[in-house]
Amino acid sequence: MTRHKIELFVPAITPFAEDLSVDHPRLVAHARALLDAGAHGLAPFGTTSEANSMSVAERMAALEALVEGGIDPARLIPGTGCAALPDTVALSAHATRLGCRGVLMLPPFYYKGVPEDGVFAAYAHVIEAVGAADLGVYLYHIPQMSGVPISLSLIERLMTAYPGTIRGLKDSAGAWEYARDVIAAFPEIATYSSSEALIVKNATAGGAGCISASSNVNARGIRALIDALGTDAEAAALEQVSAIRAIFEGLPLIPAIKAAVALQHDDPAFARLRPPFMATGAEHTDAITRAVSLAREGVAA
Amino acid sequence: MTRHKIELFVPAITPFAEDLSVDHPRLVAHARALLDAGAHGLAPFGTTSEANSMSVAERMAALEALVEGGIDPARLIPGTGCAALPDTVALSAHATRLGCRGVLMLPPFYYKGVPEDGVFAAYAHVIEAVGAADLGVYLYHIPQMSGVPISLSLIERLMTAYPGTIRGLKDSAGAWEYARDVIAAFPEIATYSSSEALIVKNATAGGAGCISASSNVNARGIRALIDALGTDAEAAALEQVSAIRAIFEGLPLIPAIKAAVALQHDDPAFARLRPPFMATGAEHTDAITRAVSLAREGVAA
Repeated sequence: MTRHKIELFVPAITPFAEDLSVDHPRLVAHARALLDAGAHGLAPFGTTSEANSMSVAERMAALEALVEGGIDPARLIPGTGCAALPDTVALSAHATRLGCRGVLMLPPFYYKGVPEDGVFAAYAHVIEAVGAADLGVYLYHIPQMSGVPISLSLIERLMTAYPGTIRGLKDSAGAWEYARDVIAAFPEIATYSSSEALIVKNATAGGAGCISASSNVNARGIRALIDALGTDAEAAALEQVSAIRAIFEGLPLIPAIKAAVALQHDDPAFARLRPPFMATGAEHTDAITRAVSLAREGVAA
Repeated sequence: MTRHKIELFVPAITPFAEDLSVDHPRLVAHARALLDAGAHGLAPFGTTSEANSMSVAERMAALEALVEGGIDPARLIPGTGCAALPDTVALSAHATRLGCRGVLMLPPFYYKGVPEDGVFAAYAHVIEAVGAADLGVYLYHIPQMSGVPISLSLIERLMTAYPGTIRGLKDSAGAWEYARDVIAAFPEIATYSSSEALIVKNATAGGAGCISASSNVNARGIRALIDALGTDAEAAALEQVSAIRAIFEGLPLIPAIKAAVALQHDDPAFARLRPPFMATGAEHTDAITRAVSLAREGVAA
């Protein structure tokens, strides 16, 4: 079995200023805090980052701000998949030029019920249009948002056509069986789960770790779990991360994550969202506060 | 009851050149042919137009090509709704500056399960950011693609907040009951059905006509039906348009429409699609040929 290093990549939230423009200083500050907390890298501009609510120009400028802010591009796997292929090409080429480790690529997601041949053609078009040997593509399986699943046969066709370029996959559907099957069929690529509660299973099966929304709040706890894998400390660490994860699964995920991050930074500006998201209501304050407390206690333990 | 003129707006397909760039000359030629065939106007850059597979710059340039090609902007309701609000703002402002009759606006469509408050906030943000008194918004209800329905309560809130700006709605979900309820609740806005087979019902209820994919192929027949409404010729005209519509409903819609348009123009280039769409297979040729024949016969009859 191919052995992957087990890593945490955080899909960092995107802070917005009062006029809803992207807040670069807070984005860089949060990115640094996550790496300081032990994250191996960041997967910014994915679903949790509200990237699909940002223009191509905004996404490029924000990625440049991260790199100029001192974040090593080798630790970045930014999301680049858009509804329109020219946008995906532009973002993927830009991230590759900046030296990013790879890009997390949604399939085109407006049209539903499209044939697998068409999804293959879309990825092929982007890879060939970018035309860079150092382009690394991580496929993004999140059918509950994209409407376009990444099937095992699609992965196989892409890996055959573009060996070396297809480097990994993020499973955000959350059913363990899918990730298990991908890892079993394609052990040579890095398969990430979207929940830290699955890290032990993921690592045992031969996966590469997780890219989880709640790692914005509990990067330190998740890193502790990764460091504890296979040791006596594993069970307690898994319990801590799972408890925090469970709280967020009962809340509007992205608004609740941003509210928790705002509490941690003691700066309400981090909680701002772009429509169509709305701030969490008062009825969720207790749960969010509890998640933040558990994250803090996990560190102390 | 408010009386709307019953009109056909064609969601014109977007021709692509061999390198998959937007083919302006063929776009203008097809637009002219549709208006010559009797369409009251065009609703380009919607779902059928593969607009969500085009970048913002491509959509702007294509709209400019139509206007420069002699299409009266007062007869254009281009689609402008994107996943990212800055893109929707840019396209809506651009179309308004060009003098378009209005814009057909999808809600932000990447995120699913978002609250109605958030969808309201998204539309409000765009309307206020465009900040033009002559902006006319036609809401676009196509939950099978967007994942975000336009509820009756949302329409009511938007009409209350932005009277005069909310001018209409396109129902692409296809269940007649929804359009019927929208027309009954909001007779003052122009409600279009997505199927010409519903034109008689739509007109009788107080709607404004249709914006239908298959009108790319049968604009003349649909215009004949509109002109025949309430006359002895209505039943035969309805039968003709319904027969053609029924053929396309059994096929991959957008690829089949483009293949039929290519047959009509006797120019295979019109059939090109961007991924994730794929050209129709040989097994669909007979059905597409039959639809084109029926459209031709309808004119002759």
